[in-house]
Amino acid sequence: MKLFEKYRPVFEKAQQTCATRECWSPYPDMPDKYPDAAHAKAAGLLAFEKHLQQGRFDLDQPGIHGWIGEEISPYTQAPLGVVYPQSDIDRLFDAAEHAMGSWAQTPFTERIGVLMEVLEVIYRDHLFEVLHAVMHTAGQSYNMAYAGSGVNALDRSMEALVYAEQAMRSVTPRAVWKRRFGSSDIQLQKTYRLVPRGPAVCFSCASFPTWNAWPSMMASLATGNPLIVKPHPATVLPMAITVKAFRQVLQSQGFDPNLVTLAMDTTSDPIGKLLIKHPKTAIVDFTGSVRFGQWVEQNAHPALAFTETAGCNTVVLESSDDLDAALRNLATTMCLFSAQMCTSPQNIYVPKAGVQTPQGLVPFAEVAQRLANSVQALTSDPKKAAMILATIQSPQTLALLKAMQTQGQQHGKVLLSPQPYAHPEFPGARTSTPLMLQVSTRERDLYAEERFGPISFVISCEDAQDALKQATQDARSQGGLTAFLYSTREDFIAQAEAAYARAGAQLTINLVGAMPLNFAAAYSDYHVTGLNPAGNATLTNLAFVAGRFGIVQSRRPVTLESGATA
Amino acid sequence: MKLFEKYRPVFEKAQQTCATRECWSPYPDMPDKYPDAAHAKAAGLLAFEKHLQQGRFDLDQPGIHGWIGEEISPYTQAPLGVVYPQSDIDRLFDAAEHAMGSWAQTPFTERIGVLMEVLEVIYRDHLFEVLHAVMHTAGQSYNMAYAGSGVNALDRSMEALVYAEQAMRSVTPRAVWKRRFGSSDIQLQKTYRLVPRGPAVCFSCASFPTWNAWPSMMASLATGNPLIVKPHPATVLPMAITVKAFRQVLQSQGFDPNLVTLAMDTTSDPIGKLLIKHPKTAIVDFTGSVRFGQWVEQNAHPALAFTETAGCNTVVLESSDDLDAALRNLATTMCLFSAQMCTSPQNIYVPKAGVQTPQGLVPFAEVAQRLANSVQALTSDPKKAAMILATIQSPQTLALLKAMQTQGQQHGKVLLSPQPYAHPEFPGARTSTPLMLQVSTRERDLYAEERFGPISFVISCEDAQDALKQATQDARSQGGLTAFLYSTREDFIAQAEAAYARAGAQLTINLVGAMPLNFAAAYSDYHVTGLNPAGNATLTNLAFVAGRFGIVQSRRPVTLESGATA
Repeated sequence: MKLFEKYRPVFEKAQQTCATRECWSPYPDMPDKYPDAAHAKAAGLLAFEKHLQQGRFDLDQPGIHGWIGEEISPYTQAPLGVVYPQSDIDRLFDAAEHAMGSWAQTPFTERIGVLMEVLEVIYRDHLFEVLHAVMHTAGQSYNMAYAGSGVNALDRSMEALVYAEQAMRSVTPRAVWKRRFGSSDIQLQKTYRLVPRGPAVCFSCASFPTWNAWPSMMASLATGNPLIVKPHPATVLPMAITVKAFRQVLQSQGFDPNLVTLAMDTTSDPIGKLLIKHPKTAIVDFTGSVRFGQWVEQNAHPALAFTETAGCNTVVLESSDDLDAALRNLATTMCLFSAQMCTSPQNIYVPKAGVQTPQGLVPFAEVAQRLANSVQALTSDPKKAAMILATIQSPQTLALLKAMQTQGQQHGKVLLSPQPYAHPEFPGARTSTPLMLQVSTRERDLYAEERFGPISFVISCEDAQDALKQATQDARSQGGLTAFLYSTREDFIAQAEAAYARAGAQLTINLVGAMPLNFAAAYSDYHVTGLNPAGNATLTNLAFVAGRFGIVQSRRPVTLESGATA
Repeated sequence: MKLFEKYRPVFEKAQQTCATRECWSPYPDMPDKYPDAAHAKAAGLLAFEKHLQQGRFDLDQPGIHGWIGEEISPYTQAPLGVVYPQSDIDRLFDAAEHAMGSWAQTPFTERIGVLMEVLEVIYRDHLFEVLHAVMHTAGQSYNMAYAGSGVNALDRSMEALVYAEQAMRSVTPRAVWKRRFGSSDIQLQKTYRLVPRGPAVCFSCASFPTWNAWPSMMASLATGNPLIVKPHPATVLPMAITVKAFRQVLQSQGFDPNLVTLAMDTTSDPIGKLLIKHPKTAIVDFTGSVRFGQWVEQNAHPALAFTETAGCNTVVLESSDDLDAALRNLATTMCLFSAQMCTSPQNIYVPKAGVQTPQGLVPFAEVAQRLANSVQALTSDPKKAAMILATIQSPQTLALLKAMQTQGQQHGKVLLSPQPYAHPEFPGARTSTPLMLQVSTRERDLYAEERFGPISFVISCEDAQDALKQATQDARSQGGLTAFLYSTREDFIAQAEAAYARAGAQLTINLVGAMPLNFAAAYSDYHVTGLNPAGNATLTNLAFVAGRFGIVQSRRPVTLESGATA
């Protein structure tokens, strides 16, 4: 209980914020605001470089039979050269089950205290180490790796703990129950135990390893389950550092470190399906491709599956008080981390007559061109481009850009052709400016699925109604996490809110200014609705945690010895 | 809001009780305590008989293309002669989707008010009508049909509303969010909508139609979803009365009655899989056989599935202060409704050396014989038998009794042979006294699955440890809802509590007296843990409701016109 008491003030503030959904975080939002930032940054870089020098990432986990690793830095396009232990899968599950015993019997507030300590240790000792690991695997920029893969992921983790605590607290640990049956009184003392479902497998993805995985890990562990982490083979190091930190804190608090282990595989020899269909798997958390996500949802049974995949995120541009500002914001969001975010917009629907502004109707083609110009303005200066576009995580994305450009030339108009830009700090970086295509709704085949990477479509529609219809159809059929609307008409806004609510996409309206349109705030913005194919799990709500444990009761007559009072 | 205010006091008491899990119900627990019972009973019987006389159960729902019905009363073994409308499935889904619109937009407290009114209307106007309908389809006794299929089912329904309200209340409807990005302040107003998942299909079972179905219906409707009820073709009338009551209340409150419709099928031409795989199905609640329940869990995707099937419920008899009392209670529970309850015990494990009592060790064979004698004592008097055994719902159960008796003779010892008893009020009733077999653990094939009906096995084990191991293995591998233990050893009790907790079965310890061992109290006892194959859904907890809706937000800059304050 000591640790829970240590973190009680911050946990209670997190609880309040989850209820009010106002803005709050215990963490500084920019690297420079981190305490003693210069030293922390240097130490983090050193820790990262030490992993590269050592080459072998030591994890003292069971069943190790080999060492593998195939990561390539998007910033250097050279192998990281780090290998990780590959353990026998059955041994990992056996160890997980064994570790579960005492953890499951620990009061849940105590478990949450230990997990708050994990957050503190990651924040205090590993944040900048994780930052560099994320940069050189996922390819994010320095600032995004700090925020999106660092403090924001810590915030979402604490949020998961809040909901886990809420779900568990709603079950009283004991009751005395009295009722008359016929002529006699029956008095029972009842005990309600929270029983973890069993071993959880957490898949983390290549481009955003920690943001979904950390909260999932917290949700499973808080509710008493042990955990096997299966990182994408392209992005292992951030999760290996994570696993090691969890294990060290668990062990230091007297728990079995095998509550958290690492399951490694390679692109050529994947183990994902083996893990999901393992007879001991009780929970699966998956972040990754739509295709495998669907497979997980369909095949995880009897395990519970929580998925977040991706979708066709849409924009409807109907009218604007300040079209330049709107296009600037859109352009920024389309460029952010080269649109390798599950929240990046892809399909931009514009009425063919154009967009209404205080200066009159701006024709469709002009809107498309001005948006392309905005994107180009952001990406033509390599220094600016490096900050916003960062790198391309996978060579496959470069291949897709090429293929889509060819198709775009055949079926539409290429507004912007992708080309590498010279990263000022990493001359070997895998980079690309965005591909932007102008099409009509006849080219639906081109854009009606997620095209991962910096690929977007400006699509001419019949009118605003058609734009809204097409956009929400994308979300419903292909999945959609985010949606963006610019309109000065309150009636159209209300209509769009209702339509996107039915389509299950989180809508941002008329936002201009310094905040990226797709910024998702922990404790405030719900991520994924579960109402369309973009995933079935929300970060974070009660449904994200309430099924991870069962309630098992025992009841017996009240006796004097038991000390229960009538 | 008027209706919610009307029921607020009782709803708040239900909320408190779900938290404390003490004993409470707003309903009288016995038919004679019902207000103006004589009149209510007579009116209920009349209403039931009117259905038989009319022959045609009118429901004004869409797409009716035929009238079918094949119910046979277990009390008379004659057809009820009632036919129900059979609607085109697509029309039912279309109507459900259409009805959802305004219901989904109604504040959830208002929806809950309407559903509380439904409970009141069923209690006030239909309770004894449902009672006779349950008797003459499911075959329950008068008192069980009143309690288990009447007031207790109403209680469980109110409990479902409590959890639905708790899950929905945990989402604030709006927030104002302010954060600094760089040098500028961003201030957003956020709206969080609770969006129902979509059409729900609720399957009700033959032997206990209302107890699971009513709470499931409440859970789906409270969270905004429309509902199609698919009754077992043998037990339609109780659910048809239910559907009609829901429709009338919904309509009288200004809502589309097609929020609740009936989907009929026949044994020879079932539509269950069509309903589950219908592209518009978003939620499935299933109560019924293990086999189909497993199919539902595996195939419902992308719909959410909530199942309660059955299992091998177990007893461990280790030692007892009062063996006669223990055996009497066991015998009563084994006889109750001819063990056609998902909570009825089937496998009774006894150490081969016998059971320790204050009078010394009672040998295994004597324990088995005394238990058989207790069962016989309860069932040899037809009047008593009628009250406790009631009838056999399905002729298939009689066939199974016969087959199991033959197998028992070959592989074990028949402690009690089943035989019809003459029901004092219904001479044509389908009845049977229980089959009891004495076997050893070598006959595992005989008992290691649910044998539905009054079939039980007294199984000799190596010792108490072996008994507990075998029993909890049944629960883990075959599913188990309930479990019963008699032991005077606190260390063994603690061990059994831990073992059954891992196996996910609700344990009742050393209970003797007037309460049936498998009595499940609403607001207090959790029904099904979700931790073994007996089903994945608990009646009722947060997991039972939290996934039935999604949270969709919209956010936009705070403007002066919007009236939001900074």
